[in-house]
Amino acid sequence: MKKTVTTMADGRELIYYDEDESVVRDTPDLRDLPETSTSSEIRYDVLRDEWVAVASHRQGRTFMPPAAECPLCPSDEANQSEIPSPDYDIVVFENRFPSLASDVAEVEPLVEPGSKLFARRPGVGRCEVVCFTSDHNTAFADLSPERVRMVLDVWTERTKVLSAMPEVEQVFPFENRGEEIGVTLAHPHGQIYAYPFVTPRTTRMLDNARQYRETTGGNLYDDMLALERESGRRVIVSGEYWTAFVPAAARWPVEVHIYPHRRMPDLTDLNEAERSEFPGIYLDVLKRLDGLYDQPLPYIAAWHQAPTHRDRDLAALHLEVFSVRRSADKLKYLAGSESGMDVFINDITPENQADLLRAVDV
Amino acid sequence: MKKTVTTMADGRELIYYDEDESVVRDTPDLRDLPETSTSSEIRYDVLRDEWVAVASHRQGRTFMPPAAECPLCPSDEANQSEIPSPDYDIVVFENRFPSLASDVAEVEPLVEPGSKLFARRPGVGRCEVVCFTSDHNTAFADLSPERVRMVLDVWTERTKVLSAMPEVEQVFPFENRGEEIGVTLAHPHGQIYAYPFVTPRTTRMLDNARQYRETTGGNLYDDMLALERESGRRVIVSGEYWTAFVPAAARWPVEVHIYPHRRMPDLTDLNEAERSEFPGIYLDVLKRLDGLYDQPLPYIAAWHQAPTHRDRDLAALHLEVFSVRRSADKLKYLAGSESGMDVFINDITPENQADLLRAVDV
Repeated sequence: MKKTVTTMADGRELIYYDEDESVVRDTPDLRDLPETSTSSEIRYDVLRDEWVAVASHRQGRTFMPPAAECPLCPSDEANQSEIPSPDYDIVVFENRFPSLASDVAEVEPLVEPGSKLFARRPGVGRCEVVCFTSDHNTAFADLSPERVRMVLDVWTERTKVLSAMPEVEQVFPFENRGEEIGVTLAHPHGQIYAYPFVTPRTTRMLDNARQYRETTGGNLYDDMLALERESGRRVIVSGEYWTAFVPAAARWPVEVHIYPHRRMPDLTDLNEAERSEFPGIYLDVLKRLDGLYDQPLPYIAAWHQAPTHRDRDLAALHLEVFSVRRSADKLKYLAGSESGMDVFINDITPENQADLLRAVDV
Repeated sequence: MKKTVTTMADGRELIYYDEDESVVRDTPDLRDLPETSTSSEIRYDVLRDEWVAVASHRQGRTFMPPAAECPLCPSDEANQSEIPSPDYDIVVFENRFPSLASDVAEVEPLVEPGSKLFARRPGVGRCEVVCFTSDHNTAFADLSPERVRMVLDVWTERTKVLSAMPEVEQVFPFENRGEEIGVTLAHPHGQIYAYPFVTPRTTRMLDNARQYRETTGGNLYDDMLALERESGRRVIVSGEYWTAFVPAAARWPVEVHIYPHRRMPDLTDLNEAERSEFPGIYLDVLKRLDGLYDQPLPYIAAWHQAPTHRDRDLAALHLEVFSVRRSADKLKYLAGSESGMDVFINDITPENQADLLRAVDV
């Protein structure tokens, strides 16, 4: 895989990843782009002990442009997109409307400096866009296994690079798919957030894993995965190195977790055999999702990785894929119980979900 | 306020609350209703240390019926609704499709009995519907202050009754308003969930409050509220006994928290002066919400109350109101960062939110 680092007209980084080692990516970005101005900050929610990002420059972001003006397609004469080249395999670039960025301005304290109650910091970090393919009219589920393997290697490379940024505490590659969950660009793409703090979800899971280790001496993820594999009741597909299953306490009407059998902190630790098997497992899961209602399923795919600087011996790399679709024509909404009290109500049992997914013909 | 307890055709409880002490509510429910069958259970998510409710009988619940068939309107010859009476002030009844109920069946263990990793319990508890008015074509914001006071007293009475149920650990009155957040019935109504566990949100907040007390000797809610009132920068409306403000680390594009100045565990502790002032404060806030985009704002209103059996000295009764609307024509979606990692990205600063809400003419 060949990597070519370039700079966009407004100074943002754009990186080509090509299968063909001989390809040259030197088309300049000739657009007359305004300087990016990023006013990101993070606020501390003292009642919940969590950071919240505030990115007020994002309100004007591009919203579902017509396909002919897609900013993620390769450029041609009619459409000067974010990617100057007339073609690409995979491309990664800094988001034009980032929630977190490296060049954000300092912020004034909300009350007296140093107040823990009303803490506020610049939203330092990085938000990247990952275009999985130059083909606008496809989906991750329709990529070739070879391309999925390449995407996995790009996620891995980005994890390595972003983890080395001194302010970054956690690297989060994810894909949002479908207008139903707010996707504003139809072109197949994902994102990577490099957060300047350990996320609340990961913090909580690691707190539990730590407590579990203190109580039992074992690892929480290992023991959970062993039970799921042993029972098999909720397993969707498994290989020599990976297992995909509906978790025993699934929150979403469609929810699949994919674990490597060997526990590791993050993507950079995957070996060749694990990398080779992943595309087949993941594509199998994604095809089942789309087959469930014979329509493209809106989903979120979220890579759980260890924090960059702590608890790397506790955490377990895995991918969680879930959907808001609860039937062919209805969506799951996060209303009072979920959004107000964090209590999810699932209308379908995990075992029933697993049966439906296993029954899909792929 | 007169309370009349009745029983519906399928055995569920239905309670009338009337302003007029002389009114008689004895119209029988003559519908031929099938027995309610409730298969609720709760599953323990060991990775997140949280319970998830699974209520698989809810898939068939009533979805946006035409107004003439509204199940929350008083009954007439053409429409035998959930409420047999030809009129009512406020009515509370057990949800026909509850997430939690008192007569749920026992469940088999998922793996060996007693496994903490895969714990599963019957979904014991109660889900009630609260109809705020018999008028189908109105909204909470348009209720009279007298009616809002009556609703407050009904929430209080229900909190008292449900807290006395031995299996109940937390009582949660809330209102979901608007199709945009999944409301399936247009008639102005709210719900009350009586959970058999302390909710994750409340658990987390109390853990922080406990730690804060250990570190500083003070109460987290008191100190936060004092700072908000002192600064005034994000205050929307305040009275002698209540203050409504946008929190310093708001997650949602519209978010207002309403606190009584005196800290107390739950609604049953409000005194007469506090009860009298509440309707004016809350109606002011709700009218500003609808004025923001000159259209009914979808919102969730969530009463935070102390657990019924613990930490009552730490907790602080308050109401959180928030919306998914981020502009006149756009919604906030919970995508990868929010749903995957619990990191909210807000596109508007809390101070800007407060300015916009204060500028609404009410």
